[in-house]
Amino acid sequence: MCSTPSVRHQLDRVAVMGGTHGNELSGVYLVKHWLQDPSELQRATFTTTPFLANPKATKRCVRYVSQDLNRSFTRALLTSKGTEDSLYEVRQAKKINQLFGPRGSADAFDFIFDLHNTTSNMAACLLSDSEENVFTMHMCHYIQKNTQGPCPIYLYGCPGPENPFLLSVGKNGLGMELGPQPHGVLRADVLSHMRALVACGLDFIDLFNQGASFPAFDIVAYRVIETVDFPRSPGGELLGSVHPQLQDKDFCPLKPGDPIFQLFSGKEIFYEGDATIYPAFINEAAYYEKGAAFHKMKKCTFSIPPLQAPSASAP
Amino acid sequence: MCSTPSVRHQLDRVAVMGGTHGNELSGVYLVKHWLQDPSELQRATFTTTPFLANPKATKRCVRYVSQDLNRSFTRALLTSKGTEDSLYEVRQAKKINQLFGPRGSADAFDFIFDLHNTTSNMAACLLSDSEENVFTMHMCHYIQKNTQGPCPIYLYGCPGPENPFLLSVGKNGLGMELGPQPHGVLRADVLSHMRALVACGLDFIDLFNQGASFPAFDIVAYRVIETVDFPRSPGGELLGSVHPQLQDKDFCPLKPGDPIFQLFSGKEIFYEGDATIYPAFINEAAYYEKGAAFHKMKKCTFSIPPLQAPSASAP
Repeated sequence: MCSTPSVRHQLDRVAVMGGTHGNELSGVYLVKHWLQDPSELQRATFTTTPFLANPKATKRCVRYVSQDLNRSFTRALLTSKGTEDSLYEVRQAKKINQLFGPRGSADAFDFIFDLHNTTSNMAACLLSDSEENVFTMHMCHYIQKNTQGPCPIYLYGCPGPENPFLLSVGKNGLGMELGPQPHGVLRADVLSHMRALVACGLDFIDLFNQGASFPAFDIVAYRVIETVDFPRSPGGELLGSVHPQLQDKDFCPLKPGDPIFQLFSGKEIFYEGDATIYPAFINEAAYYEKGAAFHKMKKCTFSIPPLQAPSASAP
Repeated sequence: MCSTPSVRHQLDRVAVMGGTHGNELSGVYLVKHWLQDPSELQRATFTTTPFLANPKATKRCVRYVSQDLNRSFTRALLTSKGTEDSLYEVRQAKKINQLFGPRGSADAFDFIFDLHNTTSNMAACLLSDSEENVFTMHMCHYIQKNTQGPCPIYLYGCPGPENPFLLSVGKNGLGMELGPQPHGVLRADVLSHMRALVACGLDFIDLFNQGASFPAFDIVAYRVIETVDFPRSPGGELLGSVHPQLQDKDFCPLKPGDPIFQLFSGKEIFYEGDATIYPAFINEAAYYEKGAAFHKMKKCTFSIPPLQAPSASAP
């Protein structure tokens, strides 16, 4: 998506994905509800399609069945030879790419929302590939101004053809990571919050389609640098947990010398970097197996140019 | 255990179980640590054995592999004919009953602690079968007085030979349910709290063994009445979530007419009972499949008789 820095034309087709991870229940139950009653998704200028991305994992209330669906959209996997024996999520990624893409083509959906939860204290985190994606940055800015509570922006970079994320299937997209919520639990407050964010995103697209233009602004966003694993034994066993002073402090400054882990032996581990960072995904349940106790993030301020009103229709 | 209302003799053998549910990580990692370094479990007057109750589920970081281990200690399952094809947790229950029981026998361990986490906001909940279990009620009282924060007492009743719980294997026992903590996540604060509770329980046994006697007292405890399921469609699909006004209000009064559920349609559901109750296990992740959005509890005050100093040794 980084090669498409902005959107010049009206958006016609939007998708809202829930259950990309089957135990992240806000998106699962919102999408199930919208499949029964899509009225609140309807806007005058475009169509919105709700979609349950990983039905098998959703039914079992697990993140995935065979492998993480949201790491299954690499070009290598999307173009791999499919057989009856292919992993379920690889088949599902290809199906989603057929229905909502194909990725990089003129047929791809104009915009995809992908709804997630996290056990981390990340509030209503908005995920985009890059600050160069002017349309999405304007949407983030609009959501920040028109919903309640903090919406920090997480920039995950531009992996190109190796982009493994579902969002890459559309011409444009926005991820939402709402937390803290335990996986396998549905909290009414988190569900309502996610519902308001999606509604606001749809409102923004509708305004844009109706010819609104949006002025330039400066915005804070966090760019991922790298991940930091838990302290482990040579055999891979955890030797401790996230330090109580770091727990729940997503997007707060972490300075060199601040404690990051507490070992079961009582010993403390301190952050040894040479600059202040802003951790995210602190103690996310699904990232233990990925070797990430938290993501190191750099806090940046970007000047986003104006978003011009669209031309009337796509070429 | 209800047929053994108190303890008359010194306790010689104590077990501390973690990982009865493999994704409840405080007990899992405390027990793993104690298996490496048991020094903090050691007391002068008895031996303590840490034990990882469900290693296969722990390895996969799931509650159970085939069926809930903590529902697998019924007489019917413990006496069922074992084969190679038996469910893993049934085999594991039999193994635990051999190692730490047999249940109801003179050979059974004197006391078992069973360490759990919950996604519910239940603080440091202490689980016992009945207020008639004078020894355990004295231990609860001692823990309440000698640790920080609330320790509500949950009485689960006396299921007799149909008792499905691991705790029933010992002559006596205490469950701990610490939350909120997402399953699959290890929080340093919850781990430290559980560690302090276990240490305090061991201290109490040590004092008792050393000849201390404990005076009578009155104590508040909550007795389970029944479970309340989520609102569901005829096909079993959730139609809504726990109401935001009920979420996180474990052990708080719920009056007739108070809201309990919020449907995805926006409609609210109100509590229709005829008396105030005190819900527990509100929105526990593992109980969605068991059909329990919360447990209805009755708040009671009990007069507990004194606990006499033990006779020197078991007969």
